[in-house]
Amino acid sequence: MIQITLPDGSIKEFESAVTPLDVAKSISEGLARNTISAVVNGLQVETTTPITENSTVQLLTWNDDLGKKAFWHSSAHLLAQAIMEFYPEAKLTIGPAIEQGFYYDVDFGEESLSEKDFERIEKKMLENAKKNSTFSLYAVSKEKALETYKDNPYKTELISNLNDGEITFCTHEDFTDLCRGGHIPSTGIVKAVKVLNAAGAYWRGNENNPQLTRVYGISFPKQKDLTEYLERLEEAKRRDHRKLGKELGIFAFSEKVGAGLPLWLPKGAALRKKLENFLSDAQKKAGYEFVMTPHIGNVDLYKTSGHFQKYGADSFQTIKTPNEGEEFMLKPMNCPHHCEIYKVGQWSYRDLPKRFAEFGTVYRYEQSGELHGLTRVRGFTQDDAHLFCTPDQLLSEFEGVIDLVLYVFRNLGFEDFITQVSLRDPENKEKYIGSDENWKKAEEAIITAAANKNLKTVVEYGEAAFYGPKLDFMVKDALGRSWQLGTIQVDYNLPERFDLTYIGNDGEKHRPVMIHRAPFGSMERFIAILLENTAGDFPLWLAPEQFIVLPISEKYVDYAKKVSQFLENHDISGLIDERNEKTGKKIRDAEISKYPFMLIVGENEAQEETVSVRKRGEGDLGTMKLSDFALYFKDAAALHSEFGA
Amino acid sequence: MIQITLPDGSIKEFESAVTPLDVAKSISEGLARNTISAVVNGLQVETTTPITENSTVQLLTWNDDLGKKAFWHSSAHLLAQAIMEFYPEAKLTIGPAIEQGFYYDVDFGEESLSEKDFERIEKKMLENAKKNSTFSLYAVSKEKALETYKDNPYKTELISNLNDGEITFCTHEDFTDLCRGGHIPSTGIVKAVKVLNAAGAYWRGNENNPQLTRVYGISFPKQKDLTEYLERLEEAKRRDHRKLGKELGIFAFSEKVGAGLPLWLPKGAALRKKLENFLSDAQKKAGYEFVMTPHIGNVDLYKTSGHFQKYGADSFQTIKTPNEGEEFMLKPMNCPHHCEIYKVGQWSYRDLPKRFAEFGTVYRYEQSGELHGLTRVRGFTQDDAHLFCTPDQLLSEFEGVIDLVLYVFRNLGFEDFITQVSLRDPENKEKYIGSDENWKKAEEAIITAAANKNLKTVVEYGEAAFYGPKLDFMVKDALGRSWQLGTIQVDYNLPERFDLTYIGNDGEKHRPVMIHRAPFGSMERFIAILLENTAGDFPLWLAPEQFIVLPISEKYVDYAKKVSQFLENHDISGLIDERNEKTGKKIRDAEISKYPFMLIVGENEAQEETVSVRKRGEGDLGTMKLSDFALYFKDAAALHSEFGA
Repeated sequence: MIQITLPDGSIKEFESAVTPLDVAKSISEGLARNTISAVVNGLQVETTTPITENSTVQLLTWNDDLGKKAFWHSSAHLLAQAIMEFYPEAKLTIGPAIEQGFYYDVDFGEESLSEKDFERIEKKMLENAKKNSTFSLYAVSKEKALETYKDNPYKTELISNLNDGEITFCTHEDFTDLCRGGHIPSTGIVKAVKVLNAAGAYWRGNENNPQLTRVYGISFPKQKDLTEYLERLEEAKRRDHRKLGKELGIFAFSEKVGAGLPLWLPKGAALRKKLENFLSDAQKKAGYEFVMTPHIGNVDLYKTSGHFQKYGADSFQTIKTPNEGEEFMLKPMNCPHHCEIYKVGQWSYRDLPKRFAEFGTVYRYEQSGELHGLTRVRGFTQDDAHLFCTPDQLLSEFEGVIDLVLYVFRNLGFEDFITQVSLRDPENKEKYIGSDENWKKAEEAIITAAANKNLKTVVEYGEAAFYGPKLDFMVKDALGRSWQLGTIQVDYNLPERFDLTYIGNDGEKHRPVMIHRAPFGSMERFIAILLENTAGDFPLWLAPEQFIVLPISEKYVDYAKKVSQFLENHDISGLIDERNEKTGKKIRDAEISKYPFMLIVGENEAQEETVSVRKRGEGDLGTMKLSDFALYFKDAAALHSEFGA
Repeated sequence: MIQITLPDGSIKEFESAVTPLDVAKSISEGLARNTISAVVNGLQVETTTPITENSTVQLLTWNDDLGKKAFWHSSAHLLAQAIMEFYPEAKLTIGPAIEQGFYYDVDFGEESLSEKDFERIEKKMLENAKKNSTFSLYAVSKEKALETYKDNPYKTELISNLNDGEITFCTHEDFTDLCRGGHIPSTGIVKAVKVLNAAGAYWRGNENNPQLTRVYGISFPKQKDLTEYLERLEEAKRRDHRKLGKELGIFAFSEKVGAGLPLWLPKGAALRKKLENFLSDAQKKAGYEFVMTPHIGNVDLYKTSGHFQKYGADSFQTIKTPNEGEEFMLKPMNCPHHCEIYKVGQWSYRDLPKRFAEFGTVYRYEQSGELHGLTRVRGFTQDDAHLFCTPDQLLSEFEGVIDLVLYVFRNLGFEDFITQVSLRDPENKEKYIGSDENWKKAEEAIITAAANKNLKTVVEYGEAAFYGPKLDFMVKDALGRSWQLGTIQVDYNLPERFDLTYIGNDGEKHRPVMIHRAPFGSMERFIAILLENTAGDFPLWLAPEQFIVLPISEKYVDYAKKVSQFLENHDISGLIDERNEKTGKKIRDAEISKYPFMLIVGENEAQEETVSVRKRGEGDLGTMKLSDFALYFKDAAALHSEFGA
């Protein structure tokens, strides 16, 4: 008898060896039809792999991430098969499933692949898929494997690093590949494929190795899924923050300044400033104190904090001085500086918590190939703060930070999120610093705070930092993509390393607990996500240019200036379209440039101190007294649920 | 016949050789009495030096800087004489006049000098001075000179570097020193002396050399002058920004972060923020656009700008990367970055001027011995902006910048200043880059702008930067000390180096002119000067804490919080003295801590929503409705002559 334990804990018994597919069939025909992969005792296997002993089994469908992985892994076989039919001299290397689809790295030798070849490959893949072949995985000896691939140095290298008994091939139809397994039952369920892109990639990512062609593809069980995917892709391209950042004049890069070091153009700097002011105001109300610290520090500082050991070798190298033998480092984090600020004073428990905030720019080296717009840069500004509190204050401080993060999300249109509580691995307590008692207190504080604030929470054991547990916010954007925004971390390590103390009400010295937190994460990454989420249609309060005045002819430019000045004096920012164009054209251009309000002015408006108001996407709102428009605007642009009020 | 040309251009004729003193006598006995030194043909000489050919002569009194220099240089002889009488084994090295007084570097060998020795040295100096000896300067051969100082390695080294014929000794009374000359007529006019300090100093400033004792002194022709000087010194100590910065919690330094890298504490960061906002608002009204740029750049950027050549070797060394061979540099100036921002766009003459502003933090290495509080640091934030304009716009842009600087000075209490116009040396035009025509235009623009704005101006030829003329503002502080604040520079160099262009109305490419300007100079230095000028009594609008609420007992803390919250909501910042102290004590403490307004609250105030207002230095202003106080405060704290309104 073989006992199969399913994810819900129920147990099924079979008389002899079964396959995952048998297990599915024993439940329902429908499930069997939809089962495309399985995990047996924690390992992803074929749906046809025999199970010969008591096991836990998870059946996977297209709706599971691992189901998609099997689907796309199998599709990579179809891609490789099609490529070999058209380019018999090509040498295959590796072809994994990725987050969205799959790729195959191919050495095309003398030949090359271009976009015009994509369609025939897609056709061939579908043609082969229709034959509804099964994937059959089988062991081969190392000798046999090496013999098979004697003309392919890449596979030879891969096989050489494997032991006899670890090597399997997979065959479907007439195509065979070196493969570890994890396939769908048959090729026939692949109903839609798209070759997306072909890009250069070094063998094993090493620039000293030969350059290969990485062919990206994606596939789906339904044509409709592909259509939707391509539409989402198109929409993501349209919203790409690199494209929008250029179009809207938010930021730019300069080769001379250096890759990954953004230059903030006037509109971008204004946007950043507004975000910073928004968060500053909220933080001041929440009792934070702003500080400012330099962008470099002596290496000793980072040796004390441990950042030198962590970042020293792999990041920007140290900065030497012409004499005196001093050595500095670009700061990779603001926390060591804030610890030194804490140490300037002497604190009693009555002074705590101290909450030091800074929009602190830090620098960390990234390989140029890893850089991506504003989401992966070499210099970025954290909306950083460090809270130093007594262990007893941890819960209320944590709750206060959650309030702040929720306030930020609400006002920036991120309503869909979950949180992850990262705790110690209870089996490996020795990996973490700090006393058991403190960890217990901190983990309880996080869990309680999240519950008190009604957060949707997943708990992950073993995901805590070595220095303390944390809470992360994962936000879904308008395209359904998930971003980690906002992190709150407890830290027992730095207070120890910097020997931070406060005098307790027992008159003795105690260690404060430290909380690191950043609701935005970094200004750069946050603005990138904001751009992609809003497609440039910022919340009204945040729009760098909130109105554009459209004088209907040159005669009314003076009045337009008066309007603009009046609004600027009320902290409403915008500009005037002084071009000698028809009003219709000015309106159309203003719609495209995403000005939230168009204020049309002519003879009547000038005489009566009014403006004709058009709201973007809504149209004509009629004529308003200038001062009424200012009030109307203030109301429309008001923040949700003023913080701490 | 010898013709003597005086500074006013008048010429006096003498039959034979004369001394400067003879020239003085020929004008008036009074002038002769006051003449203590002279410059003949550009060289400072003794008043007794014979003039044997036609010469220009400037007679110097105590009121001339060079007169003081002779006075203090001569006093250094008196100091050395006194030291040698008490410490016959001491070895003299060099003893120059400095800006305020003089010093002598002495090798005291086994002995040492301490503060308790100062008085007997002062007494001895005065005793010797009273003998009214004359200084006699005479040439000696190198051989004789080396023989005289055979036991003094320092003087031996100095003499070794001189040629025969260049070596002079000076004797007064029985004391002789190696000396280049420039003395007062006799010791008798030194009526008051003070030994100020003794500090370690390396021979020739090189830490590998022996350490000497630098004995600082000052002297005056009247006891009253010394008394006043010492009072000013006392007052300067009281106002020392390093002392006030600590007392008021403005900034701190940490050894771990590094010397010269200030940490801005909460009050200091708030002060900086207010100053930045004040200038930002004015700049926005003046049509500036804010940008933000990174604190590092590729070395190529600074090679293009020329800053690498200028700062590379003597400043912070370059920052290497772990691979890819890139090399970065801490930015010593913001201008290269702003040039790259200019290059992101394509501009026509109609788009100009572009005015890019940034509070940009730059880093420049200074020897640790050169560092001084916030006035000499290794990282500082410039209130920087770069204006890119057509040559025709130069005058009006220059005037606009002057308006801005005057607005800043007026609102920060710097009313007493002169400006210096620095022009080309017309004799050495080849030292400067840019066409004659452009220089003429720029110099005329500066002179005209300064005249149009009624600035008190001194013109200095040859003081221009090699890349363009400039205008500097020299401000006198409350102690009569002069500070250079605010600089406006024209630059033809960077537009050339960065190949910046705009399309003129002829459709052709042209070079824009660039203006660098910084009204504060740097936030660090400006705040230091502001602290010393105000002794911490900031203008009301700028005070980091503008009020303190004093509840007369615990019962009224709640109402005090309400008051504080109300005022914070009106952008008036302050705090509450919640201590359990008598109101009298709270008022006295608040006066010391320089809170501009004390708001006393008790039963009546709480019931009637009023505050009892005390103004620092003025006393009781009576009871006001809370909202009336807010209005009263707004009025009292209003900026002078709102900019650009």
